[in-house]
Amino acid sequence: MHLGEIRTPALVVDVDIFEGNVAAMSRALPRDRLRPHVKAWKCTTLARMLFEAGHRGFCCATLREVEGMASAGLGEDLLLANQTLDTARLAAIAGSGTARLTVAVDSEDTIRVAAAAGVKEVLIDVNVGMPRCGCQPETAGKLADLARASGLDVRGVMGYEGHAVGNPDRGARQEQVDGAVSMLREAYDEVGGEVVSAGGTGTYDMHDWASEIQAGSFALMDAQYALLDLPFRPALFLLATVISVNPGGYAVCDGGLKSLGMDHGNPSMQNGEVWFCSDEHVTFAPSADHPVAVGDLVWLTPAHVDPTVARHEHLVIARGPASAADGPRDRSRLGPDNPVACEEWEVLDAWDIDLRHW
Amino acid sequence: MHLGEIRTPALVVDVDIFEGNVAAMSRALPRDRLRPHVKAWKCTTLARMLFEAGHRGFCCATLREVEGMASAGLGEDLLLANQTLDTARLAAIAGSGTARLTVAVDSEDTIRVAAAAGVKEVLIDVNVGMPRCGCQPETAGKLADLARASGLDVRGVMGYEGHAVGNPDRGARQEQVDGAVSMLREAYDEVGGEVVSAGGTGTYDMHDWASEIQAGSFALMDAQYALLDLPFRPALFLLATVISVNPGGYAVCDGGLKSLGMDHGNPSMQNGEVWFCSDEHVTFAPSADHPVAVGDLVWLTPAHVDPTVARHEHLVIARGPASAADGPRDRSRLGPDNPVACEEWEVLDAWDIDLRHW
Repeated sequence: MHLGEIRTPALVVDVDIFEGNVAAMSRALPRDRLRPHVKAWKCTTLARMLFEAGHRGFCCATLREVEGMASAGLGEDLLLANQTLDTARLAAIAGSGTARLTVAVDSEDTIRVAAAAGVKEVLIDVNVGMPRCGCQPETAGKLADLARASGLDVRGVMGYEGHAVGNPDRGARQEQVDGAVSMLREAYDEVGGEVVSAGGTGTYDMHDWASEIQAGSFALMDAQYALLDLPFRPALFLLATVISVNPGGYAVCDGGLKSLGMDHGNPSMQNGEVWFCSDEHVTFAPSADHPVAVGDLVWLTPAHVDPTVARHEHLVIARGPASAADGPRDRSRLGPDNPVACEEWEVLDAWDIDLRHW
Repeated sequence: MHLGEIRTPALVVDVDIFEGNVAAMSRALPRDRLRPHVKAWKCTTLARMLFEAGHRGFCCATLREVEGMASAGLGEDLLLANQTLDTARLAAIAGSGTARLTVAVDSEDTIRVAAAAGVKEVLIDVNVGMPRCGCQPETAGKLADLARASGLDVRGVMGYEGHAVGNPDRGARQEQVDGAVSMLREAYDEVGGEVVSAGGTGTYDMHDWASEIQAGSFALMDAQYALLDLPFRPALFLLATVISVNPGGYAVCDGGLKSLGMDHGNPSMQNGEVWFCSDEHVTFAPSADHPVAVGDLVWLTPAHVDPTVARHEHLVIARGPASAADGPRDRSRLGPDNPVACEEWEVLDAWDIDLRHW
């Protein structure tokens, strides 16, 4: 089957670029230096490929992700890098024996829940500058004491510098990372342990002290991260069919708000300009030299990978022609002069996005 | 079970408000004057309630919606109010005998596909001022002739004034509707037929010529439509658990980008201000007189109902205490002085959002 034969809108992964992204990350952060973040793609098939590349511990953002990873046999070292008050579900996982489970805690309440659920190991989650979860560095030691007094093993600390990862200025980004690390060090001095978990795709190579980096977006990438100076390339596209062409200079394809994460704005496209998205449509102006016809396929690059993937049932895995794999490719049927038509893309597989929802 | 016992984040429907919205719409547009738009809630259980209220024809935006409505026995008069090039799926529905199917067409290509699929009836989709699908009014007659020559029965015209429905100025909105209607009339004069399908929730009472109104959002509503002078009230909320409280004056709950449609911006909340949303979190500042604690539940009102519903597996149907049903309610546990705690909300049912995806 080729890409011209699939139903649209569809999330397509360029498998060559995906594999290149994984190889680049594994070279930079081999084995346990990387704890891949499942939340970016919510797919046990993709997780298994990272496991086989040597990354055996994973980050999860939801209990559903933890449950699904454990059920898939990928529970060797799962970190729920998020707070939960759901004692019953935590207890079910902790009692199942299917995973080594470590839970992030940042308050007396979350410590109490972890202990009550029979969780054995925790990390103290530290706020390192982004207004989100995590205790203040100066209270980390007290929480670690409480956790240990509650029978929990404190493996160390985590701190996610979410305010830094998207900064396009590398120097400024490094400064933000350094500031975050100094807060994390302050907490670590009072907490101890063997784990210091930090970072993300945008700061994967800016940590010289953390024991492991939590990154997930690098595998598929998106238009926002592509603005940074990273060695990872966009591998994820929304393939959509042109369903209407207006003489006023615009066309409409069958992707839309329900197939895209919109928090970082419109998707981008190569040979056209996106005007706006509706529930089931993207209205765009094709480039003058790439007119479109009803039935043509267009490739859109989502602005933000995580909430885009979470809208779909599966990832369509495809490989383009060999000649296209080395240089920049024109991923579009827009216009007759395009050398890489969808018919030249072989569909290899479809991977269930099986860790969606909560 | 009460609302304090469900997993979060969860989409909750206040059933009293929902039923009030449906009753208000059925009074204004009884029976076939309303063709409810399935895309707003993608749920056959909700559709069946509208069917039982006398609205027996429905609008669909996707083939999945058409297939699901037909399978659920709700195929008495289904309009696919959108263009498709998928001959095989159209043919399967047309050949199944499970639905009376009418398809919107706006080009020679979509007419060719409908005829090839064995579809019997079409509407000519007319562009009435929003840059999206629909032919120009002056070409509608030619397309109707082509459709009839292709063996299709042309039931009439449709035109969606999407540029008008959200205009908060009622006078200006009416002017936009009048302009759209004049374009639709121009097309109708050349097309003929018994159906003139137009409108949406924001313009449901502004049409005196269309034979039917396509509205869906009125049932659940959202923060954007609530800005207009409509008799429908928000019935849909994201219930989330506070998982972290920071001494810096903010808190974090477990909803986020993956549980909300973000194209119209952040959700709103009663006793606090939303700062920003991350994948799995909403960071907000509680009002000074409504401090929150870890474990509290908060109610968020989504900015845009359609893409929010499409992110969830089901709608949790709940009824508040009788005393709360008449006046404005404070839907929050924020603070100890709140009379309507989640424990007072009975969970009645969960409705599958079974028409998601494509």
